[in-house]
Amino acid sequence: MKVKLGVSNRHVHLSMDDYKILFGDVALEKERDLVQPGQFASKQKVALKTAKNIISNVRVLGPFRPYTQVEISKTDSFTLGINPPVRSSGDLEESAEITIVGPNGEITKKCCIIPTRHIHINKEEREKYGLVSVEKVKVKINSEKKTILEDVYINESPNFVLELHLDTDDGNASLAKTGDEVEIII
Amino acid sequence: MKVKLGVSNRHVHLSMDDYKILFGDVALEKERDLVQPGQFASKQKVALKTAKNIISNVRVLGPFRPYTQVEISKTDSFTLGINPPVRSSGDLEESAEITIVGPNGEITKKCCIIPTRHIHINKEEREKYGLVSVEKVKVKINSEKKTILEDVYINESPNFVLELHLDTDDGNASLAKTGDEVEIII
Repeated sequence: MKVKLGVSNRHVHLSMDDYKILFGDVALEKERDLVQPGQFASKQKVALKTAKNIISNVRVLGPFRPYTQVEISKTDSFTLGINPPVRSSGDLEESAEITIVGPNGEITKKCCIIPTRHIHINKEEREKYGLVSVEKVKVKINSEKKTILEDVYINESPNFVLELHLDTDDGNASLAKTGDEVEIII
Repeated sequence: MKVKLGVSNRHVHLSMDDYKILFGDVALEKERDLVQPGQFASKQKVALKTAKNIISNVRVLGPFRPYTQVEISKTDSFTLGINPPVRSSGDLEESAEITIVGPNGEITKKCCIIPTRHIHINKEEREKYGLVSVEKVKVKINSEKKTILEDVYINESPNFVLELHLDTDDGNASLAKTGDEVEIII
């Protein structure tokens, strides 16, 4: 089984309330659609700030979510001097505190995670590929630095399309990039 | 078989001639010994410069070598906008051009690589572990993001001690860090 890869750079999901604090009356504008239906990269950017450092030009993804969530890599976590847990999207309990800085204001909250390796899939594709009772799989990257990534979680939703999401650490370590077709090992 | 891991951040090896261009009459001073006998982290730092960007505070390792070599990660290569090959130490043919900036001057040359995953070993240890005719092995990292790293090259020299070297991309992707004991799969 092969799946198309998307490497996710650090990014931010915002609740509408938090967005208003950060951006005021500026609308959230679409820059381009992402592979997952309805999801988009916006034109809006924030900075991520900690006591140790700041990372600028971090993209806000849309649409708004019920919760605000910052997703960074382990490499970013060393830059910022924080220790976020590896988590699935939305699982923010005991996540790391971070300050998000926008042009209109800033917010500080425990909302920063390192995202798990995961595969977006819908029910039909999950049945087709025999993954109904499978919680996680492995992914084999064939490159000059061949790598098998374990602990890749299956993330099912009716409006998802089949796509593997890795963060930039996994992508760069294995020399894999967005658009690559990679092998799933069940 | 278990081996101790050292995660190597970006660093520079210098020839004595290139060192003099960069640092003038300042001596190369030891900051601390590395695990491999005779190798040390110096107090001296340089910047790495390209048309796109600059990375500061990059450590010079000692002692001097017959050749100047810059070792960075794939993540660094995106920051700098260059495309260095994955190479063993000393194999600099068609490596990427980079400018090294010191307090006394700068040099620009084709000397930048992404280092291969490799294991330092001496002849006795290689025989002991049954690796005499083995060119490369796999490494299993047991963490929250379990990972099998293939293409890990065996690098034998009489004065080496057993140690696995990974770059920061491999270390951060698999949540492995210097000092971890990791499993070798032959």
